[in-house]
Amino acid sequence: MTDFSPTDHAMMARALRLAECGAYTTKPNPMVGCVIARGDEVVGEGWHQRKGGPHAEVFALQAAGERAKGATAYVTLEPCAHVGNTGPCADALVAAGVSRVVAAMRDPFPKVDGRGFARLRDAGIDVGVGLMEAQARTLNNGFLSRIERGRPWVRVKLACSLDGRTAMASGDSKWISGEASRADVMRWRARAGAILTGAGTVLADDPSLTVRFDEPREFVAPLRVVLDPGLATVARGKVREGDAPTLYLHAPDAKPPRELAADRAAVPVKGGKFDLQAVLALLAQREVNDVHVETGATLAGALLMAGLVDELLLYVAPVVLGDTARPLFGGLGFTEMAQRLQMRMVETRRIGDDLRLLLHPRTA
Amino acid sequence: MTDFSPTDHAMMARALRLAECGAYTTKPNPMVGCVIARGDEVVGEGWHQRKGGPHAEVFALQAAGERAKGATAYVTLEPCAHVGNTGPCADALVAAGVSRVVAAMRDPFPKVDGRGFARLRDAGIDVGVGLMEAQARTLNNGFLSRIERGRPWVRVKLACSLDGRTAMASGDSKWISGEASRADVMRWRARAGAILTGAGTVLADDPSLTVRFDEPREFVAPLRVVLDPGLATVARGKVREGDAPTLYLHAPDAKPPRELAADRAAVPVKGGKFDLQAVLALLAQREVNDVHVETGATLAGALLMAGLVDELLLYVAPVVLGDTARPLFGGLGFTEMAQRLQMRMVETRRIGDDLRLLLHPRTA
Repeated sequence: MTDFSPTDHAMMARALRLAECGAYTTKPNPMVGCVIARGDEVVGEGWHQRKGGPHAEVFALQAAGERAKGATAYVTLEPCAHVGNTGPCADALVAAGVSRVVAAMRDPFPKVDGRGFARLRDAGIDVGVGLMEAQARTLNNGFLSRIERGRPWVRVKLACSLDGRTAMASGDSKWISGEASRADVMRWRARAGAILTGAGTVLADDPSLTVRFDEPREFVAPLRVVLDPGLATVARGKVREGDAPTLYLHAPDAKPPRELAADRAAVPVKGGKFDLQAVLALLAQREVNDVHVETGATLAGALLMAGLVDELLLYVAPVVLGDTARPLFGGLGFTEMAQRLQMRMVETRRIGDDLRLLLHPRTA
Repeated sequence: MTDFSPTDHAMMARALRLAECGAYTTKPNPMVGCVIARGDEVVGEGWHQRKGGPHAEVFALQAAGERAKGATAYVTLEPCAHVGNTGPCADALVAAGVSRVVAAMRDPFPKVDGRGFARLRDAGIDVGVGLMEAQARTLNNGFLSRIERGRPWVRVKLACSLDGRTAMASGDSKWISGEASRADVMRWRARAGAILTGAGTVLADDPSLTVRFDEPREFVAPLRVVLDPGLATVARGKVREGDAPTLYLHAPDAKPPRELAADRAAVPVKGGKFDLQAVLALLAQREVNDVHVETGATLAGALLMAGLVDELLLYVAPVVLGDTARPLFGGLGFTEMAQRLQMRMVETRRIGDDLRLLLHPRTA
């Protein structure tokens, strides 16, 4: 482990903030930020904006020009060593004459995976790895999950009352959370590679599952995914409308209607229920880094019980709905306290009149 | 409204903090703090410690001695004008020769209620009223509720999971919230004039409802109140043990056992249920300022539906218990979203691994 200076920390923090600028647009690529500095002076910076577009290092080197020579390049992820849509960034850094590269983390993507660092070291560049690695990993938890685990990062979003209810018994849920929370949800949707829901939610709420910002913001529309065993909902619903793509996942024995315009795929069913691991593996194959789940108690409960929830995004509104209203999670069937699922509060934040909790499994 | 200076604000803030020192011991009296200052210099301070003991002004004047002459006295509540266990504080301030008195609020207690201010003004003292009144009212919301509304301030404490569950279906609730939360509850109990529970909770959990601090702290033990229509639980339970007094409230037609050691009183029953207004009126007559409620879903729901919950103290643990576990509030019977009870989050705070929410009714 290299020693890093306060300046190194400040520059990497800046690079991480730059990377974050690509949150809505880099998918399925990771977010990456780059700062080129001579001592305390930033001479160039950039971030990866879009798949197929230049990498962060390219923007930063362009801005730095001649001043890159002898400078330090701070990158939030290992520079690439392969020729993709752009030339290898490691080579570009060598060519520009930087004398030192500080990276937050190695890129586990098989075509990189240490080769970028090797290229730099071979060229005599001083390479330091691991500065603010935890933050860099959190930034790209979706991309890393897909590469390292072969499945997307799963974030389940739910809005509930103080007494943990998501809707009245009738299904009416408009609106438990406030306007500010609903606007906040759009930002989480925009980050996601896919928004997943179940047929029940399509029938009950008819959600469009699109990203709608008050002010124009660039984003790559997430894939809308509907789990619909029998393809019962394909004939209707806002989830089919608009520009965002829609994918129906169904049981192998479902009979697709002839005129189905949307994309579809079969997923194995076990005991009448979707094999959720297979659902996620399929989405990873389609380069989905993170799945944002907006659904009812049954699917949310099933994901939870399968140990597939990486993150729970819970909006708690200061209202009471009573014990006849619908529960947050269904089908858990716990009878003893020892069975309870334990989580860890990662962040709590007031959003308008509501409270937003971000939770991870206790063991993660 | 008088103009108050930054020094005035600082001194009153100090007096409010001093008043708070009596939180566990002044009941049923209000908490009061007093600071005597010459300009920016504090020359004496004090707080009311116990019913029957000296008032805050007496301690502060004693400490100030001769330096009180020409000074300003800051008091969080109007100085008394009647002879109780101690002489009238208004007279003491006059005798000490203070030239100005700043009070946060008028004391609505019928024997005071403006008479203290009149006494001071008659003696030629400059009197300013209303500085940080909101904070002073919050400090004594229990005392003020009893005097102004004829009923105690009602705080319902509940601990629940993320999905709003307070216990498994079996009743097992040990432990949803963490150690830090349970220690925090002791501080809220200690402030209360009474701790109220229902017969169901006594049977299911056998709570002692006493104040137990890790480190020795002075407190006046709250009255333990059990709502037990048929006096079915009087023969058992930790709630009868220890030094703290216990009061059983029962239906008028209940037959008290001959050997009942604890205090008891009959309360009107309407349609098989306790008249909760009458319960609270009875506790106010017994000089209970604030009732701390620790009970199950039924009584909590009944208080909520009766509009009698002034404050909800909710500990949310980062666990999931599932939809077969017990609900937070029972018997609300809402079928439409429009019926939902709306509250206002007054404070959110992390307590150990849990989250503590303090909520007031939206209209309050």
